[in-house]
Amino acid sequence: MTTLDELPIRDDLRGQRPYGAPQENVRVSINVNENPFDVPEAVVDHVMKSIREVLPGLNRYPDREFVQLREKLADYLGHGVEASQIWAANGSNEVLQHLLQAFAGPGRKVMGFGPTYSMYPLLSAGVGSEWIAVERDADYELSPETAAREVAAHRPDVLILCSPNNPTGTPVDLDTIKAAYEATDGVVIVDEAYGEFKPDGVPSALELLPGRPRLIVSRTMSKAFAYAGARLGYFAADPAVVDAVRLVRLPYHLSAITQAAAIGALECADIMLGEVDRIRVQRDRLVREIAALGYRVYRTEANFVMFGGVSDPNEMFEEFYRRSILIRDNGLPGCLRVTAGTEDETSAFLDALEEITRTRPELRATAPAEA
Amino acid sequence: MTTLDELPIRDDLRGQRPYGAPQENVRVSINVNENPFDVPEAVVDHVMKSIREVLPGLNRYPDREFVQLREKLADYLGHGVEASQIWAANGSNEVLQHLLQAFAGPGRKVMGFGPTYSMYPLLSAGVGSEWIAVERDADYELSPETAAREVAAHRPDVLILCSPNNPTGTPVDLDTIKAAYEATDGVVIVDEAYGEFKPDGVPSALELLPGRPRLIVSRTMSKAFAYAGARLGYFAADPAVVDAVRLVRLPYHLSAITQAAAIGALECADIMLGEVDRIRVQRDRLVREIAALGYRVYRTEANFVMFGGVSDPNEMFEEFYRRSILIRDNGLPGCLRVTAGTEDETSAFLDALEEITRTRPELRATAPAEA
Repeated sequence: MTTLDELPIRDDLRGQRPYGAPQENVRVSINVNENPFDVPEAVVDHVMKSIREVLPGLNRYPDREFVQLREKLADYLGHGVEASQIWAANGSNEVLQHLLQAFAGPGRKVMGFGPTYSMYPLLSAGVGSEWIAVERDADYELSPETAAREVAAHRPDVLILCSPNNPTGTPVDLDTIKAAYEATDGVVIVDEAYGEFKPDGVPSALELLPGRPRLIVSRTMSKAFAYAGARLGYFAADPAVVDAVRLVRLPYHLSAITQAAAIGALECADIMLGEVDRIRVQRDRLVREIAALGYRVYRTEANFVMFGGVSDPNEMFEEFYRRSILIRDNGLPGCLRVTAGTEDETSAFLDALEEITRTRPELRATAPAEA
Repeated sequence: MTTLDELPIRDDLRGQRPYGAPQENVRVSINVNENPFDVPEAVVDHVMKSIREVLPGLNRYPDREFVQLREKLADYLGHGVEASQIWAANGSNEVLQHLLQAFAGPGRKVMGFGPTYSMYPLLSAGVGSEWIAVERDADYELSPETAAREVAAHRPDVLILCSPNNPTGTPVDLDTIKAAYEATDGVVIVDEAYGEFKPDGVPSALELLPGRPRLIVSRTMSKAFAYAGARLGYFAADPAVVDAVRLVRLPYHLSAITQAAAIGALECADIMLGEVDRIRVQRDRLVREIAALGYRVYRTEANFVMFGGVSDPNEMFEEFYRRSILIRDNGLPGCLRVTAGTEDETSAFLDALEEITRTRPELRATAPAEA
């Protein structure tokens, strides 16, 4: 049998392992920030009709410019965004990859404020760019002053601000985005993968697009939209940014079925997003009840909660796993992350956390951990 | 309005234009080697059932390892290929990109025998590799001696052999593949995108896989399988090669719908491939009748024909376009490429070629062009 080491792979890949959270058949999967609610029957029927229309013509290549989908995405975003400002790909990761291929690449620098989404450094390495992770303020917050100062100091070609931030849940205010934008000549990507979970009245960075041609707001249908399996990420930006990613995308990267499935779901946006309120209720419940059990809970505007004050995150992860509950250990000292699931899933998690804290008190640090 | 030039894109992208053949609404589209036959109704119904099963669960991420699809692809390929040897992605281009990310990358060399598929240099540049195009033998053929000699001389990290070759149509014999493989320590990709159109009895490079861990055979569902719109490319190789591309793929790159759509189609493989014979009949007709009109036709085992002896390919392209027929100008001196369509489409092309040759005789070079 041939081993990977015997093949002439790139030297920097040697010894690496594939990225990806465990995919396991457990009772409660609250580890990858999915929406816990199935796609509603009415939406399934509508999406089926949408897909049915394109199936006979699949012998032809899809619309490389996915014009109709871009119109639907622009309508959905509102804020005066037009189809010419929209780009989409097979998941947010591919959207970010396109942007890094266009604006980063070999010898360039990509920067973020860590801890943040663990794919950013991998995507940067994938295009030959240096990844710079700058520390956040206390409690994983990010002030306009810190953002502007660090951006000016590091001069990244691409800055990625995840808002709300994964895995901490903390938001990034528009003032911080504005300050960061003004401090750089590079492009600024605001990753709003979890944007729809923000409290009512908290604005989107979409408001900042007019007059800022280097600002890009990325979104996904994987989270609030309950469509992770369909793989559709997208961004809104100046039309010139769309011109830029056209230079690096593979032709026909978005299948006709993906386009049809996304269009069908967007036509049911109200229904698809209908569960967001229920998820926010469970998130707020997680925040309250995890804190009541003596753990440190960070401010979150996403569909997940990060909590600290865990003496041994790996062992606590295992305790949950033994109970067939999958949560996420992002490798942050003293911290674990949990997704807001259905009411039952959230109860299962909280019951288990209570039991673990009672039966293995040593897993809770005596004093809540500091950020 | 902001222009692309005002954005901080990568320097090597400045002045470039997006890759992609024209997508135009014409009477006869025979420019991108599509299968001209719609997906049959029976297959549409079966694929709909397959997709229907996954739609409700789209709120969850897809199977990152697409286990069931890999089993179906292995069954389809035969030759003793197992699921552990299969990888798939959103089209052959993404499959090749994964392979180049793993085995090429910055500072490495990718080689092919030109003229060949125009995406190879773009994919190479995209991962920071040098693309080396070595000239073929006379008539765009490729002998074992030439292959071995040039591979030994250029020492590429990745060699791509397109067989049958796009855009020339010429095959690459197994002896040539063996000779090239033995002459290199790098990986050898045999791109059999058009493999199913070969004459009966001509073997696939799949036969060479046992004992050759650096050999990779890539395939696509876009051509013979009449599924270009579904975007599914794949390869078969040693399981260690699959381990290698896992290090570079984006997690969840293949949507649950794409997996279901491909599985559904593979379960109808006999029907899906049913039109291959009819296409081969039209290809052979093109070969005969284009030659009868005084043009130079190259040997082809694909679903397209390249012909030379055109004094002004651009102008002849325009003559077809004025007749609402879209063919392909690959930029080869004196040459144009045409896809075998339905009988009617092929007749429309041949009638137009006869008319163009009669009304604008200066477009046919007096003596057939040499390769």
